[in-house]
Amino acid sequence: MKAKTAISALKSVLSERISTSEADRSNHGGSETWFAPAPPDAVVYPETTDEVAEIVKICAAHGLPVIGYGAGTSLEGHTSAVKGGVCVDFSRMNNVLQVSDQDLSVRVQPGITREDLNRELRATGLMFPVDPGANASLGGMASTRASGTTAVRYGTMRDNVLAMEVVLADGRVIRTGTGARKSASGYDLTALFCGAEGTLGLITELTLRLHGQPEATAAAVCAFPDMDAAVNAVIMTVQCAIPMARIEFLDSLAVEAVNKDADMGLPVQPHLLVEFHGSEAGVAEQAERFGEVIEDFGASGFDWSAKPEDRSRLWAMRHRAYYACLGLRPGKTAVVTDVCVPVSRLAEAVTYTREAIDAAGLTAPILGHVGDGNFHAILLIDPENAEELTRAKAVSHQMVEQALSMGGTATGEHGIGMGKMDLLVQEHGAGVDVMRAMKQALDPKRIMNPGKMFS
Amino acid sequence: MKAKTAISALKSVLSERISTSEADRSNHGGSETWFAPAPPDAVVYPETTDEVAEIVKICAAHGLPVIGYGAGTSLEGHTSAVKGGVCVDFSRMNNVLQVSDQDLSVRVQPGITREDLNRELRATGLMFPVDPGANASLGGMASTRASGTTAVRYGTMRDNVLAMEVVLADGRVIRTGTGARKSASGYDLTALFCGAEGTLGLITELTLRLHGQPEATAAAVCAFPDMDAAVNAVIMTVQCAIPMARIEFLDSLAVEAVNKDADMGLPVQPHLLVEFHGSEAGVAEQAERFGEVIEDFGASGFDWSAKPEDRSRLWAMRHRAYYACLGLRPGKTAVVTDVCVPVSRLAEAVTYTREAIDAAGLTAPILGHVGDGNFHAILLIDPENAEELTRAKAVSHQMVEQALSMGGTATGEHGIGMGKMDLLVQEHGAGVDVMRAMKQALDPKRIMNPGKMFS
Repeated sequence: MKAKTAISALKSVLSERISTSEADRSNHGGSETWFAPAPPDAVVYPETTDEVAEIVKICAAHGLPVIGYGAGTSLEGHTSAVKGGVCVDFSRMNNVLQVSDQDLSVRVQPGITREDLNRELRATGLMFPVDPGANASLGGMASTRASGTTAVRYGTMRDNVLAMEVVLADGRVIRTGTGARKSASGYDLTALFCGAEGTLGLITELTLRLHGQPEATAAAVCAFPDMDAAVNAVIMTVQCAIPMARIEFLDSLAVEAVNKDADMGLPVQPHLLVEFHGSEAGVAEQAERFGEVIEDFGASGFDWSAKPEDRSRLWAMRHRAYYACLGLRPGKTAVVTDVCVPVSRLAEAVTYTREAIDAAGLTAPILGHVGDGNFHAILLIDPENAEELTRAKAVSHQMVEQALSMGGTATGEHGIGMGKMDLLVQEHGAGVDVMRAMKQALDPKRIMNPGKMFS
Repeated sequence: MKAKTAISALKSVLSERISTSEADRSNHGGSETWFAPAPPDAVVYPETTDEVAEIVKICAAHGLPVIGYGAGTSLEGHTSAVKGGVCVDFSRMNNVLQVSDQDLSVRVQPGITREDLNRELRATGLMFPVDPGANASLGGMASTRASGTTAVRYGTMRDNVLAMEVVLADGRVIRTGTGARKSASGYDLTALFCGAEGTLGLITELTLRLHGQPEATAAAVCAFPDMDAAVNAVIMTVQCAIPMARIEFLDSLAVEAVNKDADMGLPVQPHLLVEFHGSEAGVAEQAERFGEVIEDFGASGFDWSAKPEDRSRLWAMRHRAYYACLGLRPGKTAVVTDVCVPVSRLAEAVTYTREAIDAAGLTAPILGHVGDGNFHAILLIDPENAEELTRAKAVSHQMVEQALSMGGTATGEHGIGMGKMDLLVQEHGAGVDVMRAMKQALDPKRIMNPGKMFS
């Protein structure tokens, strides 16, 4: 009932840019992973911040949930409308507003994807490096504090969002941060909304830090005799402070998956995929130093290439790796884990994970952004098989417990969403009371993305 | 009365580590700048987190203010007990708890100063690079989101605090962040308390990111024909992405001051002081590229030196620059400004500042961390002269208005404190309502550092 009245009020604001069709609702209520579909009551397509503010005001007046939607690539069910409500699809707010090449920054709308942004930046000599793999929207990436393959060199969204415009839960609009590189002015609201998963407000604009496109780039793959050797090579590389632009791990099963998916023809062994950025001389020096490090760990096949086509093929494969892993059990889905540990504990954590997977009798490739201590097990499951799902969740919990005992975190980059709400409490203890107090202060009606982050 | 009861309760916890002596109170109620003294009712010297929690609980029970105190080097009156209360001096909580050389991190207590920390790290080959000039405490630096000379290369406290332990306003203890490099788990509480200026809780432990001591370091000074040339050289340097470790500006008057204070014998012209970190070859390459850039701006006297004694002398001079500036009017004090603007607007902002100072008939050297777009005017005033203070505050306001109109911030690194509360509102508008809501949620009794940040 409240949904109906709200929807008719929304129609007066958005005219045809609101949809309640079965198709639209179901397109926006799905998930890339194992979560059951939960379609919203309506999907709206705003074009301006004012419209977003109006939408939120109407929803607030009717007590209707508001769920932000970027590219739908979240892995923790962030966009599921578990309590119904209005899905705010930002696909029409996808413009680059201003490139400031002198200040190495860009203002964008939240719906633009990282690939589109970098396409628009190409001619400027600048780039936005954060790369979670999926072609996510920038608003979504900020909301989940995303990172990915290049964080080891360029940092995460936390490090690369300078400022935001945000619509609060009552429809008021604020600006956080400034165009300056740094600020000590008041509480860090940019950091507050970066990673808030749409539970405190909707991001309607972002100012992002840009980086120069590297003068030279080279990439390489290398195979290791076993997982330990590969991970220990990573630890040594980090400790030698080689400024890797990317350093990705695939275990043997992940290699099998990408071989099958992308016809890579790699030996079925643990691999590292790496990239170097710098001057011509710098890249050569980095590659040489890295080559020396991995030699000690029995690496083979290391052969770096500066050819763009080789690099493109390599990273296209890596970006498809999640779908390649799903391909190991066609028609099934996955519970995706995302622990991040201090780098010194990485070998131990990965070994523990492989053992836990095997003990549970699951099929699950392991891969990740190991330079940050972050890795994923893709626990392949049959969604129809409740017992298998239970086993997968148990492994996921074991991994997190292990990570927390090592001083790590339950999620390095995917966020809490629906999948890790109990782990939030396990990780932060009384800190969750602080988070709840903030949520209560800023969204007392609990309309912003309910059923996510807090149970 | 409530103070008396609280103090006797505190004595039972701290025995002799509480002081109500005139000397102790007045030592802790002063300010490095123009703020009038405001001593606390008592000064306590806790040695453990449990003691800090007990102190806060007792103060909460009696509604007594709690003011954190590190090294007392704040420039915005952060430690003044404007509403009385208990000053929590962290000087006895100044230990390094654990160096994790494999993870490039360190756990410390908040009272340790940055110089002591780096002394303890020296043998490990690691360093904590954030350098605000003063020998501040790490807890204080985190609380004001400090930065300084090296932020252009290594970032600010925001970028270098990985985790914290915090005593909340009701005495509960939480841990924020983890030992992992990144996390997407819940609201970013580390960022919340970093820069909260003690208004939400007291930091009792920090995990800091460390960096390798550079293999090679070189430093240099160079003189420019005028201010515009110096600042435009900085803009070009930043845009050429030369990875400067430090790039500091002194205007002619600041050069006069340091000449007098440290017998530097520099030509009385605008100067840049710079430092390069890297490999031997890298440092040479950076210095050469920088030399080429500044040549176009008429720089003279550029002569880089890798001799440690030359570098030490240079940065000792820079670190004393504030006191050197005060020496231009012995016995007087200063209103210190701290705007930060997008680097592309820096020349304009500095020129505007010089004109505003001259128009107001004030004596005020300009200097700053120009690689970030951050600079300070040291507006020298006679604290007894109310009219002069008014003129100085007017210039400070004009500078901030100008900075905000350029997309900058009122404070790059000193924080709001008592001096910039009205500017907080001017900068953030409705964003301040969000900050107030958070303050209300986490410190409903308003005992944490009252009279700071919010008026």
